[in-house]
Parts: sequence; structure tokens; C-alpha cells
Amino acid sequence: MDTIFNHKSIRKYKTDTIDDKILEKILLAGTRASNSGNMQVYSMVVTKDENIRKQLHGAHFGQNMVLEAPVHITFCADINRFNKWCEQGNAQPVYDNFLWLYNATIDAVLASQNVCIEAESHGLGVCYLGTTTYMADKIIEILELPKGVIPVTSIVVGYPDESPELTDRLPLNGVVHFEKYNNYSSDSIKDIYAEKENLPSTKKLIAENETENLAQIFTDKRYKKDDNIHFSKSFLETLKKQGFMNQ
Amino acid sequence: MDTIFNHKSIRKYKTDTIDDKILEKILLAGTRASNSGNMQVYSMVVTKDENIRKQLHGAHFGQNMVLEAPVHITFCADINRFNKWCEQGNAQPVYDNFLWLYNATIDAVLASQNVCIEAESHGLGVCYLGTTTYMADKIIEILELPKGVIPVTSIVVGYPDESPELTDRLPLNGVVHFEKYNNYSSDSIKDIYAEKENLPSTKKLIAENETENLAQIFTDKRYKKDDNIHFSKSFLETLKKQGFMNQ
Repeated sequence: MDTIFNHKSIRKYKTDTIDDKILEKILLAGTRASNSGNMQVYSMVVTKDENIRKQLHGAHFGQNMVLEAPVHITFCADINRFNKWCEQGNAQPVYDNFLWLYNATIDAVLASQNVCIEAESHGLGVCYLGTTTYMADKIIEILELPKGVIPVTSIVVGYPDESPELTDRLPLNGVVHFEKYNNYSSDSIKDIYAEKENLPSTKKLIAENETENLAQIFTDKRYKKDDNIHFSKSFLETLKKQGFMNQ
Repeated sequence: MDTIFNHKSIRKYKTDTIDDKILEKILLAGTRASNSGNMQVYSMVVTKDENIRKQLHGAHFGQNMVLEAPVHITFCADINRFNKWCEQGNAQPVYDNFLWLYNATIDAVLASQNVCIEAESHGLGVCYLGTTTYMADKIIEILELPKGVIPVTSIVVGYPDESPELTDRLPLNGVVHFEKYNNYSSDSIKDIYAEKENLPSTKKLIAENETENLAQIFTDKRYKKDDNIHFSKSFLETLKKQGFMNQ
């Protein structure tokens, strides 16, 4: 399917708004994704208001596209709605634990990918915001997410104002295993990453970052030990506050 | 996009095998999904061997479709490959924590949904197996997943031998919030769940299960307190063993 194979993250957007009918269809596509027991333990928060998007822009490390794109969607794991329904029906819900955080996370991500593919099939561009988990506490505050709701991932959506190249990927045999997991030898790691390491863009990055190689750009510049540990702890803390870790 | 709107989980399969070229294209579609920093911290384990599928069938609570469908794909969060690459490059990876489990989980699920949509666009049927996290320890054993690798979700893929109806979903306004989260009133919960509660299939289920309502089927029969807590604890334990909780 061409839409899937042509996917590129879009980081520059036109100011054109998205027609409400198209937006509705995109969101409906999200709800057609598989989900745990058809309990639909997720919510999608669609933000168009410029003031709220400005606050989200701050939370998402000030990435320009968050200001530019007319629509911002935050996909949340949500046991709040399901709990309320159970309680009204004299049923005792016990979904405030890690298993259901994980199930609800999967539900939210499946919905998000349907939304992205449907959006792209209408000529729209999207970009995922990995900063969602890093700044979950801030996003909870901005979007007024109650207990039982946690942001999982976010996207911005709008009409593209750039047409980047497809991003490189590891060769298929680097990420697929047949029958069982075949652990990697030192040579197979070299083979799998060879193409990526030899890209002109990689060489340029290494020169700019003054590291020995690409791996060090990840470990020493982009996703550093202290940050990983800090955001890991703060996200776990936020999950506890939102009532997801009661096993 | 029709493929998204026609999605139904398929639980009965023909014995027809899947052409290798088609399977390759489906897996490639998985790799085109967005992922954290283009680090691709996931793996797909593709199992066709009948003996291994029999073992997986046991792990997945003996669901028939696991035996029937010719292809079984286990999507894993995988920091093992990335770690090995870093270590070979004299870079110090610190991704053995909750943040990166969560990032890698999102990566794995985005890949899985691309795989599903591409598979369906070729006339194949798929079904997600929510049992993956329940039985993660067993699946790790069967597929020989090393430290740094954890199964996130699985699908079976094959040619459908049934054509079920589309499954019901909550109305769009039940799962979408505009601008910020609008918490649910007692009346809005009633409205959102009214259609689902009044389906003939729901009434039949309630009669069969001898409960007062549908919510109690979830809390008292399908996803019970003791099971939720048990599987929550065992999954967390397995995550620790696989080296993901070192913050």
C-alpha cells in the first residue's frame, strides 16, 4: 500500500486548516483499530486552539512543527471512562495496574497509527512526538487529564510544506528473525549497520558532533544516560500519580 | 482508506500458505513505520514451523487460530541489537530502563499495525493476541529471546476462512475530546455506552453469563481482579529479568 511505503515525518506545515469532515474520518479510522477486548481503553484529545497549542509547544521541547501544524492529537491510555461505566453498573473494575496500562498503551498506539495512515491517504502530513512520555506531567496539566488517563504518544497533523526524502532503515534481515530469535554475532551487527554508517548524512553528522561514530551520537548527544534515567523515573512517578501502578 | 475501515479480527483460517514475496512486503511495511530517533529498537519474530507454533498455541491459552494460521509474528521491544552495536562502537548505551521499554513498545506496536494493514491490503486476515503480555515468560522461552528483548504483541496471519461482521465501537464523541479532556458525567457515560448495551449480541451475552449487565461480564468473567493483579506482577517480574527496569 503506497501510503505506508511513502510515509515520511513532516516537520514543516502550511497554515491551511483541515476540513472537519476529513478530520472526523481520520479520527474514525483510529477507532477501527483492534483493541483489548473491545474495551477501547484509550482517548484522543484533539487540540486546535492556538493558546493551548502554544502550551503544548513548550511541553514538547519547543519543536516548531507543534506551533505550525493546525491540529495536535494526544493519544492517551484511558481507564477513567471504562471505570466510570463499570462503577455505574455496580461492577468492580480493577484495571489500575501495570498490565492494563500496557494494554491501554497498545490500544492507544494502534489507534494512532490508523489515524496517521488515514491522514496521509488524504494528502496530510504527520509527525509523532516522542517527547510525550518525557513531559507527561506537563501534558497532563495542560490537557487536564484526570486520574486513570496518561498521554502515550502525540502527533501533529497538517498540510506538508516540505517533501523530505524517505528515511533510511536497517535491512529487513536486521530486524526480522525466522522461527526463533537468532542472536546477533559481532559480524552480523557490522553488516546490519554498515549501510546506515556509510550514508553521507551519517558522515556529516559525525563530523558536526565530533564523535568517533554514529552510535556515540545516540549515547553521548541525543539520548544520554542521565536524561534516560531522569525521564524514566519521572514517567514512572507520573504513572503512579495517575493511578496506574497498583498491583 | 477502505482497508482500515474494513478491518475485522479473523479467527478462522484456510490452510493456504503465504507467498514469500508477499510476506516480505508485509514485513517491509512494518519497518516503514515511525520509530524513536530511527533507532528501530524492535524485532519481528516470524514463526511458520508447526512445532514451534504448537508451543506458541499453548502459551496463547490454546486459541485455535494460532494453530490454524500459517504465519505467527511476535513483535518485540528490542534493545539488545542496539546495545550490541553501541558496545562495538565504544559507546555506552543506557537504555535498560522503563523509558526505553516504553519507547520500544511504541515502536513495536507501530510496526505491527503497518504489518496488519499491509497484510489486509493483500487479502490476508490478521488477529492480535492480547495474551502476549500475559504469557511473556513462556514466549521468551519458546522463541529464545535474550536479555533486552520482550514480546509486546503478536499477530497471526493467513487467508480468512470466515467473514465476520464489523465489531461495534463506541460513538466517536465517546473517545474523542476537543481542545482538552472533558471528563465524563454520569449521563454522558450512559449515552456513550447505550448503543453497545442495547445490541442483541450484548443481551445474549448477559443472559449466557447470568450477570446484571455488560460491565460485569468484563469485571467478573473476562478480565477479573485476581487475574489482572497476577499477570501485572508476573509481567513486571519478566521485564526485570529481561533487563528493562534499571532506573
